[in-house]
Amino acid sequence: MYRLAGLSQDCYLSLMKNGYAQDCPVARTLDVVGEKWSLLILRDLAQKGPLRFQDLETGLGGVAPNTLSARLKTLEEQGVIEARLYEAHPPRYEYVLTAKGLALRPVLKALRDWGERYAEPSAAGVGTSVPRAFRRSGPADKQRDSRSAPSR
Amino acid sequence: MYRLAGLSQDCYLSLMKNGYAQDCPVARTLDVVGEKWSLLILRDLAQKGPLRFQDLETGLGGVAPNTLSARLKTLEEQGVIEARLYEAHPPRYEYVLTAKGLALRPVLKALRDWGERYAEPSAAGVGTSVPRAFRRSGPADKQRDSRSAPSR
Repeated sequence: MYRLAGLSQDCYLSLMKNGYAQDCPVARTLDVVGEKWSLLILRDLAQKGPLRFQDLETGLGGVAPNTLSARLKTLEEQGVIEARLYEAHPPRYEYVLTAKGLALRPVLKALRDWGERYAEPSAAGVGTSVPRAFRRSGPADKQRDSRSAPSR
Repeated sequence: MYRLAGLSQDCYLSLMKNGYAQDCPVARTLDVVGEKWSLLILRDLAQKGPLRFQDLETGLGGVAPNTLSARLKTLEEQGVIEARLYEAHPPRYEYVLTAKGLALRPVLKALRDWGERYAEPSAAGVGTSVPRAFRRSGPADKQRDSRSAPSR
């Protein structure tokens, strides 16, 4: 099956393991860009233009090299980014968004707009203010109650 | 720290483990909705209105109950959804988007638009056609080459 679709075995297995396998365009998009770090890789390429592996690793701060490597491979196999040779001897590559990848900018913009308005920096452990939303304390595990009893 | 921010310990630990801890609005949004299933939960609530745990579980098809439970708890603690009592004896809850959650609709719309145009059903293992992008085969692990040698 993965050969049929032109995917590498790693990529196919990752999709099977991490994908949603739903015939819904939202889920299908998340099958491509929903894994951890993928959207931040695309954010950096959209903001900064072509980047080398090392630039991406530094810019993302905290991604494990093998994770970054796996995400780049998946994004490339999905046609969202392209690896471009910028030096032949020794071979050096940089990553750049394809047209398909550039078309994800509205997703990045929508995430940015919401974050600017609703997610204050302390949500990520930066700063000391307490966002209003964080002062709520949710009732604990009530969804368990509604599951364990008949609900209709 | 999690007490300071009004988060449950589970939610705080999950954020520390899964969050990006970056002072960027895109990353901060993903700290809230970037975990697997979260955006699909929000999609279902946006499309179908208030839903009970069982409805969500059925609609998502494939989510483990404890995962769904954890996501709902996080989204509720983040103020994106609200658990609403719709029956008092025994207590029954349904989940509904808050204003902050409704404000995520542009994110869902952008994901949907891209998926409709660029991600064909077979990406999720549904159907048999092979999307154009999938016919590319990426050079294997070339980013490793550029990492192992000095690149500047």
